[in-house]
Amino acid sequence: MTTPFAIRRLHAADPDFARHLDHLLSWESVSDDAVNGRVLEIIKAVRERGDEALVEFTQRFDGVQATTMAELILPRERLELALTRISSEQREALEKAAERVRIYHERQKQDSWTYTEADGTVLGQQVTPLDRAGLYVPGGKAAYPSSVLMNAIPAKVAGVPEVVMVVPTPKGELNELVLAAACVAGVDRVFTIGGAQAVAALAYGTESVPPVDKIVGPGNIYVATAKRHVFGQVGIDMIAGPSEILVVCDGGTDPDWIAMDLFSQAEHDEDAQSILVSPDAAFLDRVAESIERLLPTMERAEIIRTSLQARGALILVEDMTQAMAVANRIAPEHLELSVAEPERWLPAIRHAGAIFMGRYTAEALGDYCAGPNHVLPTSGTARFSSPLGVYDFQKRSSIIHCSAEGASGLGKVASVLSRGESLTAHARSAEYRIKA
Amino acid sequence: MTTPFAIRRLHAADPDFARHLDHLLSWESVSDDAVNGRVLEIIKAVRERGDEALVEFTQRFDGVQATTMAELILPRERLELALTRISSEQREALEKAAERVRIYHERQKQDSWTYTEADGTVLGQQVTPLDRAGLYVPGGKAAYPSSVLMNAIPAKVAGVPEVVMVVPTPKGELNELVLAAACVAGVDRVFTIGGAQAVAALAYGTESVPPVDKIVGPGNIYVATAKRHVFGQVGIDMIAGPSEILVVCDGGTDPDWIAMDLFSQAEHDEDAQSILVSPDAAFLDRVAESIERLLPTMERAEIIRTSLQARGALILVEDMTQAMAVANRIAPEHLELSVAEPERWLPAIRHAGAIFMGRYTAEALGDYCAGPNHVLPTSGTARFSSPLGVYDFQKRSSIIHCSAEGASGLGKVASVLSRGESLTAHARSAEYRIKA
Repeated sequence: MTTPFAIRRLHAADPDFARHLDHLLSWESVSDDAVNGRVLEIIKAVRERGDEALVEFTQRFDGVQATTMAELILPRERLELALTRISSEQREALEKAAERVRIYHERQKQDSWTYTEADGTVLGQQVTPLDRAGLYVPGGKAAYPSSVLMNAIPAKVAGVPEVVMVVPTPKGELNELVLAAACVAGVDRVFTIGGAQAVAALAYGTESVPPVDKIVGPGNIYVATAKRHVFGQVGIDMIAGPSEILVVCDGGTDPDWIAMDLFSQAEHDEDAQSILVSPDAAFLDRVAESIERLLPTMERAEIIRTSLQARGALILVEDMTQAMAVANRIAPEHLELSVAEPERWLPAIRHAGAIFMGRYTAEALGDYCAGPNHVLPTSGTARFSSPLGVYDFQKRSSIIHCSAEGASGLGKVASVLSRGESLTAHARSAEYRIKA
Repeated sequence: MTTPFAIRRLHAADPDFARHLDHLLSWESVSDDAVNGRVLEIIKAVRERGDEALVEFTQRFDGVQATTMAELILPRERLELALTRISSEQREALEKAAERVRIYHERQKQDSWTYTEADGTVLGQQVTPLDRAGLYVPGGKAAYPSSVLMNAIPAKVAGVPEVVMVVPTPKGELNELVLAAACVAGVDRVFTIGGAQAVAALAYGTESVPPVDKIVGPGNIYVATAKRHVFGQVGIDMIAGPSEILVVCDGGTDPDWIAMDLFSQAEHDEDAQSILVSPDAAFLDRVAESIERLLPTMERAEIIRTSLQARGALILVEDMTQAMAVANRIAPEHLELSVAEPERWLPAIRHAGAIFMGRYTAEALGDYCAGPNHVLPTSGTARFSSPLGVYDFQKRSSIIHCSAEGASGLGKVASVLSRGESLTAHARSAEYRIKA
């Protein structure tokens, strides 16, 4: 049924290794003029015609029969109903996961602070939540209840008073697990709309959809393109690339476990990337054997095979120090340190979205319920960005309250510097506050 | 010499007030296909030909005679020389400002944290600085030493090992104050390049310019467009719109002071926005009179006049509660609460980049030396974004270290949820860790 398959092998001692690794990691998202044009038209229509345009696009793109926006709104009671329709095992799992995610994210909450200087001048930072956040949830097969928890809970922990969710329902099909997750996560309102039209509605508002301050959540190319276009009007989260895992193993973990960890990333889609690094050549052989043996038993075997063939690799390194260098070069979204003493290597990790330490910490545990967020920086952007968190739903305002004495002293400094920049209104404004 | 001039007056009780205010605030940055095309060509050339292209563009656009990159590098000693070439008054002002900015930003530094659960599972967040930051500084007339301090100091406080600065030198002209500020702020290397070519060099690296992880700092339309294009390859700060001030005054501040505070914003450029809100109609008249009287005495009178005429306003409100509502609608970059008890109104402010409290706290003090950053969210983006800070040069990695017992319990939850999403490799990866 399946063709023979061997995953790519790289050797860090190869003089061409850096070039091979660069090639393996290279990923550029294609910007498509046709998609751009259609998205811009949709945004324009929603800004100009509001609900009317939203209903039209939803009929056309989602095959939904609704003729008014009222039919595209799910009240909170509908979410509560969903919670009764899923199995009690599923409900318990959702509630357990939500509780752990909430507890972890509570630690990220930032508070306002001030300090007072000797002359009575007060400086500080006021931290406030966004007024309203919008959560995009894909419909159909890629509908992930875990993603609802991971996006909505940090917003609620931040204190955002209103979290609005949009989710398309292709041919009218509702996903009860997604609605149940929205209920558990505390989502306030749900609109069954999707695509660029839903992003436009959240950004600019319509008669029925309230405008939000930030839009988060994954989506297809139309959704991602629309988010790029409305950025500035509202905040957005990262535009995610394909998901990736880097497993660093000292050779002491069951090779079947490692193979399955690599599969768990590869099964997402054909562009996902799974890489294993080890200083133990014999162990790499054993993992390769596990991959060949286990692959035919997987429900998503074809996706996994394509992904591993196109973007997967087993990399042999000299030692753990070199493994850390490879990890920092990759700056992976998910990093498993499947080694004996993971805490020993933690300080050497400079760039990673999430670090899964020890042989027991499968990435899948973090994807669903360990507590930390599963929305993580991809494609090496962990070099400069962070997991989605409570801090993404809070913002800061600087506070400056000068005493008369403080203003007089600072006025002299500001006067010198602003005149050095030829900004004399700045200088005179400061000089008014200097005591005679 | 100057034509008679009266600043726009609005009245919050006017039934059309909301519409007038929307119109006054409306601002859309124009995306220009010609600029986009030229920027994309420049980025491509720098990626392909590195230093050679950089030198060519610098000759062409900056009128600089250099023929090699070596001539476009300023060693640290050159920055130290600049510090001896400015006046001692300027040096003291720079050092005083830098010290205050450093002390304030130290408070923003975030630390790593972990907590341990009953079964031994450890969860947390590792906070690390970027490896390398790039600072764009405009050349020529808009060269602001204060901007060097405000962008470089948070990076150094965050612990960024290397801060690289680029600054164009049109016709070879160096700005000693800017170089002195770079010295005081701890900038590590300076390249005298600018424009889209400098942004491309920082993003992708050349033989001489090291690639950075994030690019910050203001620039013209070419620089802003280039930053948008390299986003994803590197992090960028906000793309700033025109600067704005909203002054809320109870009528008790000297109207000349308020007029000058409005001027200090308007003198930046013709698109800058200065708005005053007060419940005291007679006071608004007095400020209008101050504006007319003081305007002809200003060095930048024509810029101020154009800015106030196009985008300025004096707004009469019913009371301070209504003033707060107007402030939150505007979400201003700079908010002066020039009132008797500013702390009373602070909790009512939901959105502002920086809040200047009391009659003595001129915005100009914050622009230069109070301590907080002067890089602030513009055009209403304070609804969802924050001042530039140490947090922009740090990033977080989630830490998950499950004990055997913890992984077993979490594995059961992850198994149920991942099977609900049809991700069975996730499920099997988690199930391997469930104890028999």
